[in-house]
Amino acid sequence: MSRTHSSWIFTAQCPSRIGTVDVVTRFLREENCYITELNSFDDRDSQGFVIRVEFRPEAPEFDSNAFQQRFSSRAAEFDMQFELTAPGTRMPVVIMVSKSDHCLNDLLYRYRTGQLSIDIRAIVSNHPDLEPLAAWHNLPYHHFPITAETKAEQEAQVWQVIEETGAELVVLARYMQVLSTDMCSKLSGKAINIHHSLLPGFKGARPYHQAYDKGVKLVGATAHYINDDLDEGPIIAQGVEAVDHTHYPEDLIEKGRDIECLTLARAVSYHIERRVFLLQKGKTVVFAS
Amino acid sequence: MSRTHSSWIFTAQCPSRIGTVDVVTRFLREENCYITELNSFDDRDSQGFVIRVEFRPEAPEFDSNAFQQRFSSRAAEFDMQFELTAPGTRMPVVIMVSKSDHCLNDLLYRYRTGQLSIDIRAIVSNHPDLEPLAAWHNLPYHHFPITAETKAEQEAQVWQVIEETGAELVVLARYMQVLSTDMCSKLSGKAINIHHSLLPGFKGARPYHQAYDKGVKLVGATAHYINDDLDEGPIIAQGVEAVDHTHYPEDLIEKGRDIECLTLARAVSYHIERRVFLLQKGKTVVFAS
Amino acid sequence: MSRTHSSWIFTAQCPSRIGTVDVVTRFLREENCYITELNSFDDRDSQGFVIRVEFRPEAPEFDSNAFQQRFSSRAAEFDMQFELTAPGTRMPVVIMVSKSDHCLNDLLYRYRTGQLSIDIRAIVSNHPDLEPLAAWHNLPYHHFPITAETKAEQEAQVWQVIEETGAELVVLARYMQVLSTDMCSKLSGKAINIHHSLLPGFKGARPYHQAYDKGVKLVGATAHYINDDLDEGPIIAQGVEAVDHTHYPEDLIEKGRDIECLTLARAVSYHIERRVFLLQKGKTVVFAS
Amino acid sequence: MSRTHSSWIFTAQCPSRIGTVDVVTRFLREENCYITELNSFDDRDSQGFVIRVEFRPEAPEFDSNAFQQRFSSRAAEFDMQFELTAPGTRMPVVIMVSKSDHCLNDLLYRYRTGQLSIDIRAIVSNHPDLEPLAAWHNLPYHHFPITAETKAEQEAQVWQVIEETGAELVVLARYMQVLSTDMCSKLSGKAINIHHSLLPGFKGARPYHQAYDKGVKLVGATAHYINDDLDEGPIIAQGVEAVDHTHYPEDLIEKGRDIECLTLARAVSYHIERRVFLLQKGKTVVFAS
Repeated sequence: MSRTHSSWIFTAQCPSRIGTVDVVTRFLREENCYITELNSFDDRDSQGFVIRVEFRPEAPEFDSNAFQQRFSSRAAEFDMQFELTAPGTRMPVVIMVSKSDHCLNDLLYRYRTGQLSIDIRAIVSNHPDLEPLAAWHNLPYHHFPITAETKAEQEAQVWQVIEETGAELVVLARYMQVLSTDMCSKLSGKAINIHHSLLPGFKGARPYHQAYDKGVKLVGATAHYINDDLDEGPIIAQGVEAVDHTHYPEDLIEKGRDIECLTLARAVSYHIERRVFLLQKGKTVVFAS
Repeated sequence: MSRTHSSWIFTAQCPSRIGTVDVVTRFLREENCYITELNSFDDRDSQGFVIRVEFRPEAPEFDSNAFQQRFSSRAAEFDMQFELTAPGTRMPVVIMVSKSDHCLNDLLYRYRTGQLSIDIRAIVSNHPDLEPLAAWHNLPYHHFPITAETKAEQEAQVWQVIEETGAELVVLARYMQVLSTDMCSKLSGKAINIHHSLLPGFKGARPYHQAYDKGVKLVGATAHYINDDLDEGPIIAQGVEAVDHTHYPEDLIEKGRDIECLTLARAVSYHIERRVFLLQKGKTVVFAS
Repeated sequence: MSRTHSSWIFTAQCPSRIGTVDVVTRFLREENCYITELNSFDDRDSQGFVIRVEFRPEAPEFDSNAFQQRFSSRAAEFDMQFELTAPGTRMPVVIMVSKSDHCLNDLLYRYRTGQLSIDIRAIVSNHPDLEPLAAWHNLPYHHFPITAETKAEQEAQVWQVIEETGAELVVLARYMQVLSTDMCSKLSGKAINIHHSLLPGFKGARPYHQAYDKGVKLVGATAHYINDDLDEGPIIAQGVEAVDHTHYPEDLIEKGRDIECLTLARAVSYHIERRVFLLQKGKTVVFAS
Repeated sequence: MSRTHSSWIFTAQCPSRIGTVDVVTRFLREENCYITELNSFDDRDSQGFVIRVEFRPEAPEFDSNAFQQRFSSRAAEFDMQFELTAPGTRMPVVIMVSKSDHCLNDLLYRYRTGQLSIDIRAIVSNHPDLEPLAAWHNLPYHHFPITAETKAEQEAQVWQVIEETGAELVVLARYMQVLSTDMCSKLSGKAINIHHSLLPGFKGARPYHQAYDKGVKLVGATAHYINDDLDEGPIIAQGVEAVDHTHYPEDLIEKGRDIECLTLARAVSYHIERRVFLLQKGKTVVFAS
């Protein structure tokens, strides 16, 4: 098990103010917690503070509930939201797909091998195609077809799955439908999409064809939280690959798959490991690894 | 289907000499073949010439046997070895693995989706662990255990599979056994190995631990043809990833998996697409894409 | 002196048609030219063919004028434009700058050391600031101030320098003025600009600020031929660098300088080495190295 | 001026122990210092702790001497070495070169533009060649020739310059002499060398030729602190560049220059910004940016 998976992780976020680091580190000291890694950042633009700490309790017994309770009052003073994540925690996840399977296949591999600490509760799709892949992993697969007329109903079905499974994260692994504003707002900050371009360049449909038409020498992918505008949410990770004149659009599509997989997997892993923070201005802090 | 997959590919290699390009291109013109891409290189060091052409026949009928026969006499003048590969050709392959499944999983995905034009005839392993993965893909899996005493026998079993399946390429996808000199020489130029370091750095066992001990800021992987010295054959592709002080050996191992998969897949695809040539001095020409 | 600098280079371009490779290679064979490297590409979209050959004449005497004359009639049959470049040719260049000196400094270094086979005939600027840098390299520096009113006159001055110096290439090394349509069309295909973003993303002014506002995790630079729209010409090279939340716009600007220098230098060197071809649809073929 | 240049920087290092973060952050709170960025790491292998803080004093007056004095007793409890660096501090530096000027040219550019907060006190060389470059920057240039017989004397001369100029950092910008053990130990932790390979691969002379002989597809550079073994000190930064079969050794050398410059500049800037810490086991912690 890797370093991060075996640590307790404490994360917090609040408006900028002097003392924000101290209130956390002093408490961890009092609680006899041994800090192995700490990163904090205070953003001058949005006036926001974020902190992430990896630590191990020194005492054999560690009562995380009591820990959180005791910290609550101090956090309140700073309007601080905080979260404590135990080692080995596996975040409940729903994955949404359409017909393309490369990102799903990649996520399932990382899930199966424990590389990604997620607990996939369901796979949801507007197409039946990827059911066998889900079946082989013994994962429930929900086929909810969608048309312009049934969009609201279909989203209700999807939402029900998310709710019933207790999913804390939704991963849009090349789900080719635009979510409604309502759905986006429900999923705000807890749904990650992969777009196959270096956003904000080439938004919308057929980004590789757009890129080809412009004769670019680099193509890329962007993993981002979804918000009202499907291709415009806060960016978590971007990846890039060199291409040349020999790549027609179909070659770019093929070439782009690897970078899509890697970028999405990296974003999900950063999210799972509590490395990502959303600032008010729609930007992210990512303590990458 | 991508550009390369829909073209005829002509490749040839011979000692350096004036006229090597002309003998090929003149013939292609006479045969009414339309060249869409051509790359040639004449190596001053090893005095070797290589050429790769993508083309389409202009005539509706194209008799590839007659084509090859007609070219043979001209090739002979130049001591030229040549090969003609039809569009959509799927090279018969045997994959060898031990317990790690990341490279196998990646290759199987690319095989399943047709991204890699290979025809996997068998998977061979010294361990039973990866049989279910093979089974899901409906591929024969041969478990040939190995000990110091049974090495010769086991290699004979492996060789039999290679022969019987007509495999033209053997991919060592993290097969953790050193092949005998005899086996290496039989497989010379037709077996690709992935080593988890930037060879020739960190040869041998536990390269990530070696890298960690040296405090490197980059780790990588090397795909190469095997020869007598398992980790020293001609290099086809290398990949690299940045790391930092937070990565202990187990983190490097985890981090390295992606670059191993990508580097091996790239090397196999270059080999399949006839982009790789072995020069006499043990180096490769790779017309990358 | 590197490989490319010591070779003759033959390049040609024409509409797609069978026999385009053969007409070139057959001629080179007849002329007793030894081909060390050849790359050709036939673009299915724009129906254009390009070829680049590095060769050395086998005969001690090589009459390049006669060579070109003899090839002309064959070229005519194919509507082929061709060019022959002698080893060590240094292309006459005018560099245009404003106040930023990083790209200029980088180009001057490569010029001084012969790494870039250019003959800088003049440096032109709308500001006096970089005159000392030019002076140290013993290069003429023309300060032509510009205002909205004097734009036409100033461009006439610039054009005069280009004409009088016989410059075959104009490098806009962070020249912060938009050229007139007339100037752009005069310079079409012979002027390279560096834009500090991954075009077509973040066109126009202050691209790093735009990138910051979008919270991107990668910034980049694009070297391109200029055309009517300053930031939209055919792309030659693009470079990219990872950034994170700690980079405010001023940090992005600082961080971006290296990639701007490298990308521009690479584009200029590709142009000088006749590796770049303009296709009709406004895209480039770049036989990179 | 970029973010980092306008902050106070506090760094400290000590043996691993609970409370190491708290002792720092509590003090900064007491001193009314506003933390904008903090990174700490506790290394399980060497049992060492490091921390780096960027902050701004809240009070208009900030007495840094008093600050340091007050912290000393607390630091003593933890055997903690600490350092306080004022905004805009320019570290006194001596640069050592031989005949190659690409790294020197690059460093001088960054120095001249303030991108690198260094105060170059002298340039020392065993050759006279680069004197004009120094002269143009109005920097003292010391030509100390060296032979096997005069090595001790020459090093004494060099050392005198380092001492007299008060240099806190020595940058070996392609200085092609092996330093004596004595000199190495005097410069331990305060001299950065650039080696033109991905150390520990291709140590010693002519690394690009070594790389060429192995047929590698990637070349790189390594910036490291020097120690007894010139090419084996703790690594600060590494860079890499893809190459292919068309690159002969002289091409690799040319191609490698950019990555050498960038890697050395990055290492120097990390050192200047107090982002680098030496762990006991000869490894570095680098809080990169």
